[in-house]
Amino acid sequence: MVISIIGVGLLGGSFALGLREKYPHVKFIGVDASVVNQKIALAKGIVDEIATLDEALSISELNVLATPVDVINTLLPDMLDKLPEGATIMDLGSTKELICSLADNHPKRNQFVAVHPMAGTENSGPGAAFKELLENKNVIICGKEKSHPDSLGLVEAFLRDVGMKIHYMTPVEHDLHLAYVSHLSHISSFALGLTVLDKERDERAIFDMASTGFSSTVRLAKSSPQMWAPIFDQNKQNVSKALEDYIELLKKFKNAIDDRDTDTSLSFMNRANDIGRILAGIEKK
Amino acid sequence: MVISIIGVGLLGGSFALGLREKYPHVKFIGVDASVVNQKIALAKGIVDEIATLDEALSISELNVLATPVDVINTLLPDMLDKLPEGATIMDLGSTKELICSLADNHPKRNQFVAVHPMAGTENSGPGAAFKELLENKNVIICGKEKSHPDSLGLVEAFLRDVGMKIHYMTPVEHDLHLAYVSHLSHISSFALGLTVLDKERDERAIFDMASTGFSSTVRLAKSSPQMWAPIFDQNKQNVSKALEDYIELLKKFKNAIDDRDTDTSLSFMNRANDIGRILAGIEKK
Repeated sequence: MVISIIGVGLLGGSFALGLREKYPHVKFIGVDASVVNQKIALAKGIVDEIATLDEALSISELNVLATPVDVINTLLPDMLDKLPEGATIMDLGSTKELICSLADNHPKRNQFVAVHPMAGTENSGPGAAFKELLENKNVIICGKEKSHPDSLGLVEAFLRDVGMKIHYMTPVEHDLHLAYVSHLSHISSFALGLTVLDKERDERAIFDMASTGFSSTVRLAKSSPQMWAPIFDQNKQNVSKALEDYIELLKKFKNAIDDRDTDTSLSFMNRANDIGRILAGIEKK
Repeated sequence: MVISIIGVGLLGGSFALGLREKYPHVKFIGVDASVVNQKIALAKGIVDEIATLDEALSISELNVLATPVDVINTLLPDMLDKLPEGATIMDLGSTKELICSLADNHPKRNQFVAVHPMAGTENSGPGAAFKELLENKNVIICGKEKSHPDSLGLVEAFLRDVGMKIHYMTPVEHDLHLAYVSHLSHISSFALGLTVLDKERDERAIFDMASTGFSSTVRLAKSSPQMWAPIFDQNKQNVSKALEDYIELLKKFKNAIDDRDTDTSLSFMNRANDIGRILAGIEKK
């Protein structure tokens, strides 16, 4: 069997590394616009060969589309046009509505499986890939009823093999939830990092005074802008609403502090504490 | 020597545990309004005895005031009144301007040392205390020129003994910087947790979809409301300005997303990425 990874970055690379352990006889082909990524992917043993997209597509049973989401949109219709019978494309994009709607209009829709693994780090590129990234993490498959059982079954088997727990959702549900539990926390972190950098021209002060709490809250501000800009754009309505809710709450918090209304501050924080119960579950996973 | 810990919680408890290793002959006395905290502090070996504040004050060479900052304000003037000659009070509060101004008006100002260790976790209470908490962390001493060299020297020696790196600052500088690098990140985290909880009535959805990135960003939302409400109140002007800056930046980010102005989003995120360099330093510490 031949599997192609289109976009050999953190996610695509980690998926390949996780699979290789279980499937020593599968040949992995890498497709990447960056020559540096190609070299690192080969040197790190993520893939066996580098090929062009057309070459890869003509010989692969499974094509894993792991580029930023704007590139997924550009590539997917053309890839479906050229996809041989019996072969499958899965994407790993962080948005699903637009990507699925592009696929829905294509006659080969049932050879496509829309996938979003809830895993990542603030680092990017094949150098950051590691085979345990997807282990014990959740993964969402969207619109599974539109995928052919053979394509779906193959993708599900591979996702389970790298240790993921599969959930199913519509693309609309996916994008709404993700705006809150993922996209918003990235924006809050980017904005927090920038607020502090703008204020603290003397970075020595940040260095000396910031504790590990700051470090943890602002960690996602290291994430790749090239990956996240198109995600926010594709999920613009939900992200905008989530940001509106967040800004509204921050304003209320600020008013409570300005008014020395400690009861309101306390009530905000007591309610927020409840996230602890939920986090306990996430961290155990 | 006798050292009293007034407020045997995460920070006071960890300081005592760190010191005990180096000073097996020091007697540690615990003062705490909570009977549960008293019992846990004794059972965990954080202190040797429980006493009232007046008893502790009458026999201790060093009094470590480790309560929430509103309680520090209430206790400090009276404690200075009763402080025997040659004895020292140090506080561990997260705000410094108001606390130092209370001490500045007292004739025994030079027996007081204003201290803020840049260390903590989202957990609280003596059960969460551990002896390594302060190791390799930074600590700020404010207004050191107002402390008697003997009081200052004793406090500095103990802080170094538990592994801390000492920095000096005015109370005004301290409260300004802390608003940005600590207080703001707590508020952003509380507000993020609450925004998600308000939206996601079905907590199963959060549980299934949130990745470790969300978990890290929202970790501080588990922090103690009783500890943080008075910090925000005492540092209200700086915190309010920091929140204003943060909200302003979030609005600009939201506008860029609404307008599909990817150049501006990218530029925000690229600038925020610079925090990575600084974080690398914090995490190494």
